[in-house]
Amino acid sequence: MPKTDAANLTAELIKCPSVTPAEGGALLHLEKLLVGAGFECTRVDRGEVSNLFARWGEKGHPHTFGFNGHTDVVPVGDEAAWSKPPFGAVIEDGIMFGRGSTDMKSGVAAFVAAAMDLVKDTPPQGAIVITITGDEEGDAVDGTTALLDYMDANQEKMSVCLVGEPTCPNEMGEMMKIGRRGSLTAWFTFKGVQGHAAYPHRAKNPLPAMAQLMHQFSSYELDQGTEHFDASTLAVVTMDTGNPATNVIPSECKSTMNIRFNDAHSGASLTDWINEQVAETTRQTGIEIDVTIKISGESFITPPGPLSDLVASAVQAETGVTPVLSTSGGTSDARFVQHHCPVVEFGLVGQSMHQVDEHVSVAQIHQLKEIYSRILKDYFA
Amino acid sequence: MPKTDAANLTAELIKCPSVTPAEGGALLHLEKLLVGAGFECTRVDRGEVSNLFARWGEKGHPHTFGFNGHTDVVPVGDEAAWSKPPFGAVIEDGIMFGRGSTDMKSGVAAFVAAAMDLVKDTPPQGAIVITITGDEEGDAVDGTTALLDYMDANQEKMSVCLVGEPTCPNEMGEMMKIGRRGSLTAWFTFKGVQGHAAYPHRAKNPLPAMAQLMHQFSSYELDQGTEHFDASTLAVVTMDTGNPATNVIPSECKSTMNIRFNDAHSGASLTDWINEQVAETTRQTGIEIDVTIKISGESFITPPGPLSDLVASAVQAETGVTPVLSTSGGTSDARFVQHHCPVVEFGLVGQSMHQVDEHVSVAQIHQLKEIYSRILKDYFA
Ligand SMILES: [Zn+2]
Ligand SMILES: [Zn+2]
Repeated sequence: MPKTDAANLTAELIKCPSVTPAEGGALLHLEKLLVGAGFECTRVDRGEVSNLFARWGEKGHPHTFGFNGHTDVVPVGDEAAWSKPPFGAVIEDGIMFGRGSTDMKSGVAAFVAAAMDLVKDTPPQGAIVITITGDEEGDAVDGTTALLDYMDANQEKMSVCLVGEPTCPNEMGEMMKIGRRGSLTAWFTFKGVQGHAAYPHRAKNPLPAMAQLMHQFSSYELDQGTEHFDASTLAVVTMDTGNPATNVIPSECKSTMNIRFNDAHSGASLTDWINEQVAETTRQTGIEIDVTIKISGESFITPPGPLSDLVASAVQAETGVTPVLSTSGGTSDARFVQHHCPVVEFGLVGQSMHQVDEHVSVAQIHQLKEIYSRILKDYFA
Repeated sequence: MPKTDAANLTAELIKCPSVTPAEGGALLHLEKLLVGAGFECTRVDRGEVSNLFARWGEKGHPHTFGFNGHTDVVPVGDEAAWSKPPFGAVIEDGIMFGRGSTDMKSGVAAFVAAAMDLVKDTPPQGAIVITITGDEEGDAVDGTTALLDYMDANQEKMSVCLVGEPTCPNEMGEMMKIGRRGSLTAWFTFKGVQGHAAYPHRAKNPLPAMAQLMHQFSSYELDQGTEHFDASTLAVVTMDTGNPATNVIPSECKSTMNIRFNDAHSGASLTDWINEQVAETTRQTGIEIDVTIKISGESFITPPGPLSDLVASAVQAETGVTPVLSTSGGTSDARFVQHHCPVVEFGLVGQSMHQVDEHVSVAQIHQLKEIYSRILKDYFA
């Protein structure tokens, strides 16, 4: 039976202009292919988002290997700055160009191709579940979460799950992710009383309170890292007043900070800590401070074990490189999947993701499919 | 001979729409009156600004009493918010409304009326110089400075000078000014390297450096006041970044601070101090910081003595109130005059200056003219 060409499939997906939340034809195309290979497919659309659930084999089989990925892509940005059409999938010197070529239509194509070939060539003793969302780059409210809600409601299960996001900083095979730091954003509004700069005692300047609190936060060491995690980081990302008059003390200013936290913290513990610091600053300065906190994801980890061993040995066998088990970087949909089953992430080199002239090595797509194929073969062996 | 009605003259001046730098007919009107009273008048226009120099009596007479004031006014602002026409000089219940009614067409009218009456009724042994600028509320580059340059070039002199700005916070007569604090503004630009909030070690966030430096400046006590001055004040007036993305560390941010300083400091000593703090912050944070410093005025003082005694005793005689000798508040053109001769400031209650529905008590205008008349009489006695 002819093998599925993962690079061709990547190109077909790139040509679907699936900027979040547009489906762009990408999920329709995958559904047609998967149905053709014997998968049961269900579109799990929610809100304006399209998602695809696919299963080959028995529902709830105790050996169900899961894949997770997304076909939505970030906007093109400055189209004039692209040297190739962003939805053209043009190949030049073995490099394929296009929005989503790296993040992560190549990853989706590679695991879909690997799964289709396996079930056609050597049907495994077990099941394969493929969950593909159209809302990873957006709010992610109606994406993988909707798929997992659907699975819960329909007794669908994954025993383990591999997310196909790009994970390698520079070289193929060098890194997989076994967890992610959590992310918390806090928005502060400092409220004083406007006045003339020559009479500061008649005003209540909110800026010293902001400077003090942001200085304290910036200077604080949250931790020095944990067994599997780098140190948590805190970044003040903006401070704003918008006062054009040098002789006027403004009544209000705002700042925002973002924390990427490891398993030494939780969203709740950090929220308590932030609120304490804020209350203390108000006590010291008399400035009222409003805070809004959003936790985009808690930190999580799938400790090194059978799943990471499975993936690492397949990567080693196909590339000769032993992947580092990392928990670095931003958030991904693995933060949702981890509530369902053990999850790790492995994909190709992510250097050009979200950038102009995003591109991927065609050879790497083929190599990634071989790695995913080997993982499946070993899992079901 | 009929007395000059200072309230009528105030109303005539209010009706001249002399928003800086427009002359609006105000100086033309004053020139006509002063020429009629025997003053030699010269228009000292520079750039787009109009100024009026007037002298009665012998040039360079060792007893030359000087007045300084301005006829330009700040913009009307939200005209719909005014309950009376801003250039209408409407009188209601003894209160005259209009832009400039307090700051300081009433002051100009009062000293012009006092001077005209004196030279007509009882010509003094000495001279009177009146300097009126149309650029006090603006940059003040081509205003009183142009008048003083003209005087230097033409051997014109004032032995002492009274600036007629409103000086009383609440009650007529309670305060005169014998000096002013200096004013310095510093603009800071903090230059880092943009990056992703999840990878702060790859970026150079300029915000912690800004928070640290502005916190240090805000916390610093410049002094506790000097013999004639309140403590110097420092106000951070704005901090801005303009970064809308919570997951991005910005490359640059800016802040501005304003210092009102007494005679324990100079623009130069503060500039040195700021530059040292900036250099230390750069050493600690690695963030490049650009600073631009503008000194709008040095602090100055005319120590208590004959001139302040003259003014204080006239105020006391006319109002029954002994004025406090103050150095508080913003800057005024006295900062230029002080290089020429001893200068003090006395005028009426300044509460509504620069505001909507700016207004003045008609009785206070008459009282102010009586005070100025007594000062002149006593000076030449
Ligand atoms: Zn992605
Ligand atoms: Zn004024």
